[in-house]
Amino acid sequence: MYGTSRAKPDQVVMKEAIDELAAAFGNRLVTSDAVCEQHANTTTWILPEPPDAVIYPQSAGDVQLAVRICKKHGVPVVAFGAGTSFEGSVNSPYGGISIDLKDMNRILEVHNEDFDCVVEPGVTRKQINEHLRDQGLFFPVDPGADYASLGGMASTRASGTTTVRYGTMKDNVLALKIVLPDGELITTSRRARKSAAGYDLTRLFVGAEGTLGIITELTLKLHGLPEATAAAVCRFPTIDDACNAAIAAIQAGIPVARVELLDEVMICGCNAYSKLNLAETPTLFLEFHGTDAGVQEQAKRFGQIAEESAGSAFEWATKPEERNRLWQARHDSFWAIQVLRPGAKVLVTDVCVPISRLAQCVVETKRDIEQSGLIAPIVGHAGDGNFHAGVLVMLDDPEEVARAKEFSDRLAVRAISMEGTCTGEHGIGQGKKRFLEPEHGELAVNVMRAIKHAIDPTGIMNPGKIV
Amino acid sequence: MYGTSRAKPDQVVMKEAIDELAAAFGNRLVTSDAVCEQHANTTTWILPEPPDAVIYPQSAGDVQLAVRICKKHGVPVVAFGAGTSFEGSVNSPYGGISIDLKDMNRILEVHNEDFDCVVEPGVTRKQINEHLRDQGLFFPVDPGADYASLGGMASTRASGTTTVRYGTMKDNVLALKIVLPDGELITTSRRARKSAAGYDLTRLFVGAEGTLGIITELTLKLHGLPEATAAAVCRFPTIDDACNAAIAAIQAGIPVARVELLDEVMICGCNAYSKLNLAETPTLFLEFHGTDAGVQEQAKRFGQIAEESAGSAFEWATKPEERNRLWQARHDSFWAIQVLRPGAKVLVTDVCVPISRLAQCVVETKRDIEQSGLIAPIVGHAGDGNFHAGVLVMLDDPEEVARAKEFSDRLAVRAISMEGTCTGEHGIGQGKKRFLEPEHGELAVNVMRAIKHAIDPTGIMNPGKIV
Repeated sequence: MYGTSRAKPDQVVMKEAIDELAAAFGNRLVTSDAVCEQHANTTTWILPEPPDAVIYPQSAGDVQLAVRICKKHGVPVVAFGAGTSFEGSVNSPYGGISIDLKDMNRILEVHNEDFDCVVEPGVTRKQINEHLRDQGLFFPVDPGADYASLGGMASTRASGTTTVRYGTMKDNVLALKIVLPDGELITTSRRARKSAAGYDLTRLFVGAEGTLGIITELTLKLHGLPEATAAAVCRFPTIDDACNAAIAAIQAGIPVARVELLDEVMICGCNAYSKLNLAETPTLFLEFHGTDAGVQEQAKRFGQIAEESAGSAFEWATKPEERNRLWQARHDSFWAIQVLRPGAKVLVTDVCVPISRLAQCVVETKRDIEQSGLIAPIVGHAGDGNFHAGVLVMLDDPEEVARAKEFSDRLAVRAISMEGTCTGEHGIGQGKKRFLEPEHGELAVNVMRAIKHAIDPTGIMNPGKIV
Repeated sequence: MYGTSRAKPDQVVMKEAIDELAAAFGNRLVTSDAVCEQHANTTTWILPEPPDAVIYPQSAGDVQLAVRICKKHGVPVVAFGAGTSFEGSVNSPYGGISIDLKDMNRILEVHNEDFDCVVEPGVTRKQINEHLRDQGLFFPVDPGADYASLGGMASTRASGTTTVRYGTMKDNVLALKIVLPDGELITTSRRARKSAAGYDLTRLFVGAEGTLGIITELTLKLHGLPEATAAAVCRFPTIDDACNAAIAAIQAGIPVARVELLDEVMICGCNAYSKLNLAETPTLFLEFHGTDAGVQEQAKRFGQIAEESAGSAFEWATKPEERNRLWQARHDSFWAIQVLRPGAKVLVTDVCVPISRLAQCVVETKRDIEQSGLIAPIVGHAGDGNFHAGVLVMLDDPEEVARAKEFSDRLAVRAISMEGTCTGEHGIGQGKKRFLEPEHGELAVNVMRAIKHAIDPTGIMNPGKIV
């Protein structure tokens, strides 16, 4: 019904739903403007659209009850993790109820002998890794935002700095518990490492951005902490050289754990925000994982490649505190962008292309930024062919906002024209909906619509997103 | 309609459909009994159920035309790759048209700079690897059957000996072209290594066993041929010891490329069939990939683990011809099983459990085989917790067949009770349908049914399989 009729529920209906939810949830239902506004998207140019109320469930049973009440009244349900979406995935364009899963933050089981764990969706990636550290294990997916929730990361098919080595959420979720739009609870798979038993429901719900159901539990693959880790910084005269070194490393089969590209504008921001002293030129941040000998070998081979691409000698960061400082700076890049232009808002976009097209795509994009008169640092997961542009705009300048949007649209079209995708890891949400058909074709999007309709026939689950 | 009404199409309707197909396909449509019987499942106890006709398309356009004609007449369509399914996936219980994709066997593109290639579904894994060898690349998924087609492997979410290191078909398919049940052609994804753009249609069609559409093109991930490869054989006094060594190697994070378990019965068959001279005791076949130094390091660490599990010293096979002989023997295990009991048929089943449960599951299964008075070698991808039992039965002895079936059922239930799956890599087909609900629960299977109905509302695609 939403997504076709595009109407908010009648206010009388909404009030009845909220009254029934209030009776069930007491003070775990909040309707204050401040809280509702916190649950509307605020990280992009997409207008914040608050829900009518926010609920804080503590169990799958709570989520089932909330969804059943919403279904009865035909009221939208928007799952909310940590609110770090860049594409308006948690916005409530048709009002309704935001289900904030932050209180469902328990680590339920760690099977260290099987390298997996079971967690609630509100657990953050930082929290799980702090919990696992003593057991010699870690969860690798690292989207940059340390406080991202694992439920949200699964919902947007997140990836990040370590994906080049360890994969995306699609590769690291073994099973999910899902509350369906009718309030029923299913488990999508078992704890075995692989299965050929039926349709792959796990991968269907990973990346569905809450439009098919709400994740209430995740079984995640874990990895052994590497025996040895080394990080390094390598500078290049041009962005083209930096991209080409990353491409050559991947093509040579070096199993880099991280290979992050930061352009000179981004480095400038990192220096200012993180009190670093890096030369302001295109740079790769690298990390190698393995045995002592393996790490040495990887680094040596990368060094040869970097030399051929006119890269500087490595600056090593082998001590944990140095390494952490470097990666903290990378993780803080969203904040570092902002210091480049006080008062401006960062509009972050992301694309991914086959790695052979990365240098061309980045170079054309930088030229486009310059020609558009915009300030937009580029930072990317170069090993995957994935990069972000963070456009700094003054939201009170509609002409500038329009220019930034046009740039972002051209970037999506450019990536698609290079056999790439309009979003490598941020998701479609509201912001990229218009690129879904250009990317997949109308007929494939019709299959997505048919699936959406089959699983959520009344369209209450996160209406207005993806399809 | 099929799967609910369970009726074959009326013979008049069938004749009309075949006449129309014959007009379109000429001698590429065959109705002879011999050919139809070749296209009915013959590898298990499931009764062969031949189609009414077989078509040999040469392009996606041919497949679209055939599907459109079948749809118009309401006639079942069963995609056929190489016919190596163990679970009756290519059987035609409701008659109809078998679409044999063997002529669609062109390698369309190899992008060596992006480590991917584009192939038609009839290309076999052997063919693609022969084509790639000179380019230093390979496609890793190795289900054991060298002549398996890549389309069939994707359809059953196949995996195999190298999955422990390189993943399953789910991990190695980047994109698919699919002819939908209405004859339309879609592309499920782009050539970028990752994407967060909409529902993961690729993973939905991987493992759908042709029940949602027919694969007419695959974009596959490739991997660099390892600089160094070493293979080894390691014997153990008991199956428990062999499992525990494999488990310990995985838990120690050794990136083994292959770790295959063969019980003493299987070794006996390999000796007879492949003219080997292996000690008839539980054995692991291992393979290590990496740099020279890396392979040495992995092998040394595995040696220490094997010693702790009472394993023999390695017998190395570093020369390519020795290594090939070893793996050829492993690949021929399906045939090797048969020499153990001339005249018997091999009923192969497969389960997968969390690796911590592997030893227990294998030991209980071996006890069950003994108590059931059956001959059933065990061979498995130990690193994934996945193993097969090949039960040798005389098909003309109904009591023995019943005993074999009961054993196989108990094995599926045992795996499910250990948080595992009733099939790690063979698929559900017809043979494992009754375990789909015990494994996933009725509500999750209802979601699969809803998806099937949404994409194939008239149920013409491979009716009677999975759901």
